This record gives sequence, C-alpha cells and structure tokens, in this order.
Amino acid sequence: MNFLEERILKDGIVKEGNVLKVDSFLNHQMDIELFNEMGKEFKKRFEGKNINKILTVEASGIGIACIVAQHFGVPVVFAKKTQSINLDGEMYVAEVESFTHKCKNQVIVAQKFLNENDHILLIDDFLANGCALQGLIQLVQSAGATVEGIGIAIEKGFQPGGRMIRNLGYQLESLAIVDDMEWKTGKIVFREQN
Amino acid sequence: MNFLEERILKDGIVKEGNVLKVDSFLNHQMDIELFNEMGKEFKKRFEGKNINKILTVEASGIGIACIVAQHFGVPVVFAKKTQSINLDGEMYVAEVESFTHKCKNQVIVAQKFLNENDHILLIDDFLANGCALQGLIQLVQSAGATVEGIGIAIEKGFQPGGRMIRNLGYQLESLAIVDDMEWKTGKIVFREQN
Repeated sequence: MNFLEERILKDGIVKEGNVLKVDSFLNHQMDIELFNEMGKEFKKRFEGKNINKILTVEASGIGIACIVAQHFGVPVVFAKKTQSINLDGEMYVAEVESFTHKCKNQVIVAQKFLNENDHILLIDDFLANGCALQGLIQLVQSAGATVEGIGIAIEKGFQPGGRMIRNLGYQLESLAIVDDMEWKTGKIVFREQN
Repeated sequence: MNFLEERILKDGIVKEGNVLKVDSFLNHQMDIELFNEMGKEFKKRFEGKNINKILTVEASGIGIACIVAQHFGVPVVFAKKTQSINLDGEMYVAEVESFTHKCKNQVIVAQKFLNENDHILLIDDFLANGCALQGLIQLVQSAGATVEGIGIAIEKGFQPGGRMIRNLGYQLESLAIVDDMEWKTGKIVFREQN
C-alpha cells in the first residue's frame, strides 16, 4: 500500500452515494507535505517524458498541480470553468457533458498559454467519469499540443473515466485507485499497482 | 524595486477600467519559482509570528497559498465561494457585499478546519476593494481563531481595501502596491516600501 492509500484509509470517509470525502488533506484542507510526496511519485512515473507545462482545472486541482510542478520545474496553467472578465483575447473552450448531472460545463484556457510546442502533463485531484479530464484533453488537442501524461490523485475505478482514458492510449497514473467502497462499513478496496 | 514589481513591469498589462492583467505569471499561468520568491519574502515579513495554518479563497489564491505554505511548514485551507455537495457538516459562512458589482457573495469553510486554536495567515493574489478578504477575516473571527497576518501579491493602492484593513490594525503585507496606472501609456506607479 502506498502513502496516499494509507492516508485515505486513515483520514478518508466513505459516504452514501459513492462519495469519498478526503477534504481534511486533499481538497479543502490541503496537506502540502503529502502533495510533495505525490510530486515525487509522479516524477518517477513520468520519468523520461518531455514535459514543459502542467495543465489543471480550478479549483481543487490547483494546489496539487503547483506543488507537483516543482518536481518538474515547469509552470502551471489552470483552466477556468466560467468565462470571467479577466479572460480576454482568444480562448480555447471545451464543452463537456456530464452524464451524471445531465448538464453541460465549459473549461476554458487562453490560447496564448497553450500552443503546439507544449508537452503537457495533466493533473487533477479526482477521476470518476472523466468529464473534466476529457475537457482538458480537448483543450490540449485544440492547441495542437501533446498530452505526455495524466496524473491523478484518486481514481474511482468503479466508474468508467479511467478505463476510457487508458483505452485511448494515454499514460494515466492514478496514485490510488478505489475499486470498491462501502459506506455502511467504511471499507475501501484499492486496485493493486506495481 | 522588488522582484514582483519588476515582473509586473515586465509582463503585466494595464487595461482600460483599472484592470491589471498578470495572467501570464500569477493567476492563469502560474510561475512557481516566482511564488517561491513570494513565500521567502512573506516568511521574512511575518518573522516571529506564530502561524499554524494558511487560509485562502478559491481559485487564484490557492496556488500561491500552497507554495507559500512550504515556507511556513503549515497546511492550507481554501474557502469555497459556493456551497457544493462536497461540503457537509457544520460550516462557517460569510456573506460579503461587493460595492462594485452590487451583488452578494459567500465564502464558506467547514468548521472542522478552523477553530479557536488556529493562528492564521491569510493569503490572496489581489486586494482591491477587499471584499474577499473581509469575508475571510469574518470566517476566522466566526471560528474564534486569530488573524496573525495578511499576505497579498498585488494591492491596488488607489482602491480602499488596503487602507481599511490597515486601519483595523491588521499586519497587511502586499508585495507590490500599485498606486497609479494608466492604460493609454501603460505606466505603473508603485508605492515605496522599505
């Protein structure tokens, strides 16, 4: 069991409706030392990849992406979910449909921060159905840039996002893959990883 | 002139309507090395303060807060702007009225991550009228915690937020205070700081 899986068992809480609450260390309160461990591990797993930029999406991906970026020595760009007055100039806009919430969301990035010379590592905190991630991939493709890899903290292995992304040939590295969880007993089963 | 002021002169763009665009290094694309310089400087300016947690607000404060946190060896909590399904349990909610946008906004933090033993450093990227910051201070006070200091990247010195916060007795440290800017000429005037 790795450091993140151990931490999930220690501080994660399983709630009804397949909700895994990790807000005490990952996405509300943030344990920066843990993020540094994640950065080291991603650096190892993407060894040899030519990465010049990290792309994530607001809000909870930002903290992890910034700490991970230190291990790669690259800047971070975060995609926005709504068009704000602070975004001007040409933008790449990806529209993604959530099949759980039955709604459409946009992820947006200024074109000047993503171009065909970019070799991108995508970082996010969670992967479940993969909507946000599909939007990020679409943004990278719109720019003619290259997705070198995808680093996720926690993947819900019982939802289809991860399988679909791997089927497309991307190197997707999830530090913890939850294959099963039960809110009544609090049981969490992780997928074996090498 | 300090490192941040130099960077603003180099890469910041003044737009009509008192908009200072710093999205190439601060709040869309993020220069992590610059954030580390900011962390070092905040550590110096808040020397001797007993700080055990950093509080910021989504989205653009998160990256700076996480990198700065490494210089203090503390966790980060980010307040949310909207109630999400991932926030359960008791929450502190601060309602702040924007006097430019004539609308009310909420900043929200789970009560379990803020309590009377906390000594808080507030971090954000921008300070203008100070609405977001007032909301964060209100959250800290609701919890009975202590604001040990406030660290801001860029303060618009010609707007009232900074003066008001200093009048209340808080140690507010803004790494760059823009006292005047002109979109026609691109001129930016910084306040002298020791």
